[in-house]
Amino acid sequence: MTAPPADRAQHLARVVAALEPLLPAHALLWQREDTVPYECDGLTAYRQVPLAVALPETEDQVAAVLKACHGLGVPVVARGAGTGLSGGALPHALGVTLSLARFNRIVDVDPVARTAVVQCGVRNLAISEAAAPHGLYYAPDPSSQIACTIGGNVAENSGGVHCLKYGLTLHNVLRVRGFTADGELVEFGSGALDCPGLDLLTLVVGSEGMLAVITEVTVKLVPRPVVARCIMASFDDLRKAGAAVANVIAAGIIPAGLEMMDKPMTAAVEDFVHAGYDLDAAAILLCESDGTPEEVAEEIDRMLEVMITSGATRAEVSRDEAQRLRFWSGRKNAFPASGRMSPDYMCMDSTIPRHRLADMLQAIAGMETKYGLRCANVFHAGDGNLHPLILYDANDPDQLHRCELFGADILETSVAMGGTVTGEHGVGVEKLSSMCVQFSPAERERMLALKHAFDPEGLLNPGKVIPTLNRCAEYGKMHVRRGLLAFAEIPRF
Amino acid sequence: MTAPPADRAQHLARVVAALEPLLPAHALLWQREDTVPYECDGLTAYRQVPLAVALPETEDQVAAVLKACHGLGVPVVARGAGTGLSGGALPHALGVTLSLARFNRIVDVDPVARTAVVQCGVRNLAISEAAAPHGLYYAPDPSSQIACTIGGNVAENSGGVHCLKYGLTLHNVLRVRGFTADGELVEFGSGALDCPGLDLLTLVVGSEGMLAVITEVTVKLVPRPVVARCIMASFDDLRKAGAAVANVIAAGIIPAGLEMMDKPMTAAVEDFVHAGYDLDAAAILLCESDGTPEEVAEEIDRMLEVMITSGATRAEVSRDEAQRLRFWSGRKNAFPASGRMSPDYMCMDSTIPRHRLADMLQAIAGMETKYGLRCANVFHAGDGNLHPLILYDANDPDQLHRCELFGADILETSVAMGGTVTGEHGVGVEKLSSMCVQFSPAERERMLALKHAFDPEGLLNPGKVIPTLNRCAEYGKMHVRRGLLAFAEIPRF
Repeated sequence: MTAPPADRAQHLARVVAALEPLLPAHALLWQREDTVPYECDGLTAYRQVPLAVALPETEDQVAAVLKACHGLGVPVVARGAGTGLSGGALPHALGVTLSLARFNRIVDVDPVARTAVVQCGVRNLAISEAAAPHGLYYAPDPSSQIACTIGGNVAENSGGVHCLKYGLTLHNVLRVRGFTADGELVEFGSGALDCPGLDLLTLVVGSEGMLAVITEVTVKLVPRPVVARCIMASFDDLRKAGAAVANVIAAGIIPAGLEMMDKPMTAAVEDFVHAGYDLDAAAILLCESDGTPEEVAEEIDRMLEVMITSGATRAEVSRDEAQRLRFWSGRKNAFPASGRMSPDYMCMDSTIPRHRLADMLQAIAGMETKYGLRCANVFHAGDGNLHPLILYDANDPDQLHRCELFGADILETSVAMGGTVTGEHGVGVEKLSSMCVQFSPAERERMLALKHAFDPEGLLNPGKVIPTLNRCAEYGKMHVRRGLLAFAEIPRF
Repeated sequence: MTAPPADRAQHLARVVAALEPLLPAHALLWQREDTVPYECDGLTAYRQVPLAVALPETEDQVAAVLKACHGLGVPVVARGAGTGLSGGALPHALGVTLSLARFNRIVDVDPVARTAVVQCGVRNLAISEAAAPHGLYYAPDPSSQIACTIGGNVAENSGGVHCLKYGLTLHNVLRVRGFTADGELVEFGSGALDCPGLDLLTLVVGSEGMLAVITEVTVKLVPRPVVARCIMASFDDLRKAGAAVANVIAAGIIPAGLEMMDKPMTAAVEDFVHAGYDLDAAAILLCESDGTPEEVAEEIDRMLEVMITSGATRAEVSRDEAQRLRFWSGRKNAFPASGRMSPDYMCMDSTIPRHRLADMLQAIAGMETKYGLRCANVFHAGDGNLHPLILYDANDPDQLHRCELFGADILETSVAMGGTVTGEHGVGVEKLSSMCVQFSPAERERMLALKHAFDPEGLLNPGKVIPTLNRCAEYGKMHVRRGLLAFAEIPRF
């Protein structure tokens, strides 16, 4: 896909000439040493240096850059903090990466309306910090919340450990402001309830940069619970841990968080953060309650009872806030801790109906043998959202290939169990081929038609999320001919 | 728009010939005495007898009817229970009304997944009744829940008094199954978390029959709270009642319901249901807490304190379930009770940021003088969702005209205050012109493009929800020339 060098130079000169007058000095990068830091996001297995990087500081500059690129037919890839895990911000070789890093202002926190208006580049955790003086916080809490920004959260419809009770980004956003591919200002949603007509707000949330570039978001804030306590329960059998999750939900409890880690994951994390995890357990569950002291005391009692009747070999309730945070620190550091087990890991993100958790863990164990790679498991168990971390060495092409096959197998097994290929990390480039399995040609055509309604020239984040009919036909052929193909077919630009 | 009689007869003969072989006997109606009952939905001010009514019993029959109509270029209007309040099911003079009344089967209730799979014609309350043995219920509770069906709830994204805490239909639906205009089977969402790619599920929820005909829905169920108690608080001043609503929310409480009724409404309702309302109050608030006994006791105490410091002249807490239901019976019967005040009423459904409640009540009082009509007010106050009931006599054309102007004024004032023209009843035909005020030409064009992506021939529920550019241009002209025009321009077919 990369143009020959001479053409690329000409193309670059034309783009730089068009954008340079629109931006402050130092806000347009095109020298290789400046653009290399943008070559990937959190999905480090895929890299591509962009043609140029624009760092606008105002909405007018965003509109101007988009208009100029639209006029030249140049693809634009929006980028937030670059923490995404599916390659949604992977650059286009002949396109401009539009970094929104400088949109980092908290515009307003309104304790009566319980909303915050923030620019897209504000970090997830910074919203909660700004709301804290009013006793409020922003509920969706991706593990990367210290770094990831709200614009990216909206683009990916991010989740987090507390989304079981408080919902995904989708459920916590009231209004999105941004620009379409041709630089037109758009606002979706409002400060008030509901969206009359077709609900463009919910369509834009999770649209992975394909429909609009987001510059400002109005989020809902929720009251900070008076108290939160967490149970850490050990199980000697994955099946029992899976059943305990189903039993908690069937008992009519909605925990503030309900997470599972298997033994390899617990071992790696414990070594890293010293959370006090039970290293003998086949799986541990973290099960949280939040609310008023009375409510939490009663709910913790009920959850403890379910854990014990479900066969927990050990169950400990956090004594104080410090211990509760220590319990969670392990879970929140699961991804970085994986670096201690293996030079590289690939994090999957599929969902399954929650009563299939134990079946899925068993299936993954079988795949470890089949593909000759290890896998550590950390699940948003209450939501049925899986994050298996496949461990591999990216310097070994055969390991990378087997890792890709392993990942595709997990995704397709999830679909076969009635689940989906992504819970919260997005499709990006990573799960393009798996979308062929999840959706029928007619369904994918409908998605492309919606994309076309917003961006008829296909300039915003092209080649991602929705596979072409051709690609799926190829995938189908390979699939039949030599088993799973998966990511091997992702264009490397 | 109605074709001359001869042409109509020819057209009817062609449609009947095409549909009759596809349906059981008695499932196709075209004699005037059979089709008249379908001439309107809950928006009785607008009536149109359909060309024919089809009552399919299976999904195959739905697909076949849609395919046949698609082949002939005949418009199709889907209809549930006909309780809608914005004319979404108003028939097309030359089109087929597709009644889904016979899709009334509860397919599955799964207490572990906490979901129910139901056909579209199942009544809202019947879902909760089926889930009750498991201690579960379906949370969104429109006032019409005894009659309205889940297919219509999904089409309109219905709310209810408990949506402040539990969310709208949108937040409680996992999967929708149905057919596009050309009879193709579609499924949006899944039994698991999140929708990969573009979120077609949330787009279809609230799309008012324009994108697909819904036949089956998977809903989330929530645990029935152990106990619920309700405060009824009186205020001698609308402004104080409005401030009390804001103060409850600002205190970090999310009540299970927070409703307001003004004096005319309370008087009409009390006469009807004998709920024990304070007839001297300028406004009453109903403020509910649900959960465990400990939680409810504590939250009721906090809410009572806010009511008293906000200037409540009286505040009573329901002693038992019978009294709680009596408090709510008045609220739930507000619409029928209006019939005792006036031969007809038109129910508006706009939203405003909740801190503007008192301003809005004052503005409505001014409009009563301006248009010479009375208005009774019942609000989902916690959500900022207003239901002013404008009282008029439909047999007096001048009163109908003034009522339409009054309604449009409320909607446009809501938009000016930062709100929207509909909270939960939909746009239908009723608020078509107000959509010109709410949305820019580019925004409406984008909605039309999305409609086109699903239904390129424009056969599903045509002429509703999204006004044409031409219509808005006309509306703008009239608006400037002689004040508000509003509904007078709605085509009467």
